[in-house]
Amino acid sequence: MAQKLQITPLGGLGEIGKNMTVYEYGRNMIIVDCGVKFPDNDMYGIDLVLPDFDYVVQNQDRLRGIILTHGHMDHIAALPYLLRDIDAPIYGTPLTLGLVERQLKEKHVLDRADLRTLTKNETLHFGPFHVTPFAVAHSIPDSVGFVIDTPAGTIVHTGDYKLDETPAGGRTTDLDSLRALTKNGVLALVGDSTNADRPGRTETERVVGETLDRLLAGAKGQRVIIATFSSVLARLQEIMTLAHKHGRKVALTGRSLIENVALARELGYLDVPAGVLVDVNARVPKHKMVVLATGSQGEPRSALNQMANDEHRQIKVGQGDLVIISGGTIPGNEEVVGQMLNKLFERGANVIYGRMDTVHVSGHGSRDELRTMIETVRPRFMIPAHGEARHLHLHAQLAAEAGLRPEDIFILKNGSQWLTDGQRAWTDDPLPVADVLVDGRLIGEIGEIVMRDRHRLSQDGFIVALIPVDAQNRLVGEPQIVSRGFVYLKEAEDLVAASREEIKRQYKRGKRDVQKALEDLFYRETQSRPVVLPQFIRV
Amino acid sequence: MAQKLQITPLGGLGEIGKNMTVYEYGRNMIIVDCGVKFPDNDMYGIDLVLPDFDYVVQNQDRLRGIILTHGHMDHIAALPYLLRDIDAPIYGTPLTLGLVERQLKEKHVLDRADLRTLTKNETLHFGPFHVTPFAVAHSIPDSVGFVIDTPAGTIVHTGDYKLDETPAGGRTTDLDSLRALTKNGVLALVGDSTNADRPGRTETERVVGETLDRLLAGAKGQRVIIATFSSVLARLQEIMTLAHKHGRKVALTGRSLIENVALARELGYLDVPAGVLVDVNARVPKHKMVVLATGSQGEPRSALNQMANDEHRQIKVGQGDLVIISGGTIPGNEEVVGQMLNKLFERGANVIYGRMDTVHVSGHGSRDELRTMIETVRPRFMIPAHGEARHLHLHAQLAAEAGLRPEDIFILKNGSQWLTDGQRAWTDDPLPVADVLVDGRLIGEIGEIVMRDRHRLSQDGFIVALIPVDAQNRLVGEPQIVSRGFVYLKEAEDLVAASREEIKRQYKRGKRDVQKALEDLFYRETQSRPVVLPQFIRV
Repeated sequence: MAQKLQITPLGGLGEIGKNMTVYEYGRNMIIVDCGVKFPDNDMYGIDLVLPDFDYVVQNQDRLRGIILTHGHMDHIAALPYLLRDIDAPIYGTPLTLGLVERQLKEKHVLDRADLRTLTKNETLHFGPFHVTPFAVAHSIPDSVGFVIDTPAGTIVHTGDYKLDETPAGGRTTDLDSLRALTKNGVLALVGDSTNADRPGRTETERVVGETLDRLLAGAKGQRVIIATFSSVLARLQEIMTLAHKHGRKVALTGRSLIENVALARELGYLDVPAGVLVDVNARVPKHKMVVLATGSQGEPRSALNQMANDEHRQIKVGQGDLVIISGGTIPGNEEVVGQMLNKLFERGANVIYGRMDTVHVSGHGSRDELRTMIETVRPRFMIPAHGEARHLHLHAQLAAEAGLRPEDIFILKNGSQWLTDGQRAWTDDPLPVADVLVDGRLIGEIGEIVMRDRHRLSQDGFIVALIPVDAQNRLVGEPQIVSRGFVYLKEAEDLVAASREEIKRQYKRGKRDVQKALEDLFYRETQSRPVVLPQFIRV
Repeated sequence: MAQKLQITPLGGLGEIGKNMTVYEYGRNMIIVDCGVKFPDNDMYGIDLVLPDFDYVVQNQDRLRGIILTHGHMDHIAALPYLLRDIDAPIYGTPLTLGLVERQLKEKHVLDRADLRTLTKNETLHFGPFHVTPFAVAHSIPDSVGFVIDTPAGTIVHTGDYKLDETPAGGRTTDLDSLRALTKNGVLALVGDSTNADRPGRTETERVVGETLDRLLAGAKGQRVIIATFSSVLARLQEIMTLAHKHGRKVALTGRSLIENVALARELGYLDVPAGVLVDVNARVPKHKMVVLATGSQGEPRSALNQMANDEHRQIKVGQGDLVIISGGTIPGNEEVVGQMLNKLFERGANVIYGRMDTVHVSGHGSRDELRTMIETVRPRFMIPAHGEARHLHLHAQLAAEAGLRPEDIFILKNGSQWLTDGQRAWTDDPLPVADVLVDGRLIGEIGEIVMRDRHRLSQDGFIVALIPVDAQNRLVGEPQIVSRGFVYLKEAEDLVAASREEIKRQYKRGKRDVQKALEDLFYRETQSRPVVLPQFIRV
């Protein structure tokens, strides 16, 4: 029997984030991307979420290499954690590797890494896998997709892309190369589904440039502060060019922005007009300044949020400042971004955000672009990737509209094992994969029980009842009540007294189901359900 | 010295929700609206937020009446709480009072209420106040704004409005009456700012009708489930008419929807074609059904969310179901709505939501409509209302663009006291007003300390260290560690052991700052900061 190609997404399916896909053929494995996910609002106290590496760690003897599509955190930032357990060469374009290097250095694993630069159109050989990158337009330069040739057939793994024909930086998605590389047909398309719920085409980055040009022209006498993602380097380029055009200097604030600009300049991705870049403390009149800042998502410690809270060391925002939020709000961040905007307005700044003008466009293609990709590649099988369930299903609908048979479209989950012999395709029992939660130094030690407890604590707090008992389990003193997050006990003496009485009553009746009795009491009195923990103190 | 008119917003300024405004002249007070706010995501465990009633309660001898603009919860649902403390007649249009009645009945205060129906164009007299309602288009029928004549001048209080010229239900904003009522000039405009950050005009409700018509025409063979707000009665009317046109029956699921439809039919606001409304259990072929459901915001116990979780008693969602989310996502609800959509897709339903088609439009006017209102009313002073700080500031900018002097535009906060003698206007020291939090039966008893504790508990949980000491405060036994939401202690024996050792070490050194020592230990080991509570047990 012929060997099979197996594709196992370990992250990125059913979620936006922690993209990681395993390709296997015989005893050969390659990995595409290794990213983190930023926690949902209900993942209390969690800093980051990692893919579940178990399967890779258990089969690391087969691993031939890790290939990266681009340098965004949801595609590279789990590498430092993976490298604690495994060794393998990592391939990426120069900018992507530059960003990886910084991640690895921060986590003190750079010395263990074997980084290899992907050169344009070069084909990499990993046993039965022959991998050729093709350029894609995305919101970070140097992004690629991969054409992965295997004995079973050719897979196109798009990575994140849009079909912007006038992107800032000029890097379009190279459909010509893609066509040439896939002229013998495509077995399966593994495609970005992020914007599968948006009709039409995603607007071109050029309109953002035009809008910023117009806003700068109209901002006479005002300082302009632009908050954006530190990774949208082409937009940073555009802003610097426009600042120069309008006779302004540019100052940077925010660590990731400063680092990314330095890296991009060093690698030749950013061409800063001479003299434009100045220190944030430079003595430049306000109306001659553009301040580029991190914080478009309202991140607590970002430069713009510090300005909003009047905690920024160098910049005081106020009357005469025009703030432009040049970054869409990631779902889940609406409230914190809104709070930051409110504070900026309250300080007297004018702020342009959201729908008020086209100051941001997405880096992912919308439905018409996804359709064009399917029609360009004409795959036998389709695997929508990079999206929550709704995006995957809507991408699947598109593929069906484009003529694929419904049974040839596979909606997978993280851990799904998709197999093909080049003729048929099917799925095997899925791997049991879980979100690996990072909380401070704890990696994977915070599980469901702790998360459930945190949720309950957040809603109603807790009560610890200290109950002095003797060796015969008899109550031998006054119970004490300790609590936080329930009600303010100093103001709730009645409730404390009632709980003491309830404990005594339980002991008198010999029932002693103190926990249930207290839970009932608190629910009766307050309709709340704090976590109740009786502690018996042997005296 | 002449008496002054004073306007004091107690809610709705700097927030979307709990709208309540106090108007005073001499010893006469009227209140416009009395609503609740739904809690932000970071208000852990809170069910509702009420305005601070203290000022009204303290001055209730002056209160002449409460007038209501419309029946949305953010304008009426705090009335049951206010009526616990005060007595005053409540005025509203028939539908608004119908909805108020239900709120009061639920909270068992209906018998205390004196409800009086507002009739069209009738002027109410409250001492120096002469109040005339005018019709406005909004997403609930029977909405009005008020022209409030006072000896100091005329105030226009818009309430929520849009200038939809083809609304479902046909109720347009009556600018002609407004012009007639204000022909002697307007001293101040208190205007809805909700959509001050949206350029242009809000789309007309008619496009929603057209979209739903098209979707129903294309849904041959499918059951159609439409989730919407139970209060958009004009849209409910439209849906029933369209269902009839397409030969379908309509079933309702969700308590508020069933109650609102009954109320609206009883009051003549809903004209249901004969035989269209059926029970949700009726034996009607699926493709002849439209199910109207609550749950457009992903509310946990709503009908649509129950379907998504396969917990709905009558309706199993799956292949062959077309679900239409005919309600915009309120900021902050994106994640829960997204999760619900994912589950519906996973069950095999097709879902239309968000930007995919025009299945919802806002009930609030956008910038061009706000500008028209300002130009229609030509006020001397402007008070942007009903919005977060950013909306108020952007509405103020509009007023300035329309020709008002910046010093005549007042951006107030809840508690601000705005005064005018008819010539000048100024603000006095603001009243100290706070959010009044409702958590189960606790009203106003949950304060900042408890909220801060809940936040910390949600992030890192807690540790209670039980430390047996004798009368001389000497450690006389083994400390015990109780914890929830930090790490799962059964798997963290090292950490428990280390904390016991740390406590003993503290006692040996005679320092005994156990709390700080444990906090440091946990931060060092885990980079987390659980709430640490040492409890000394006298043995």
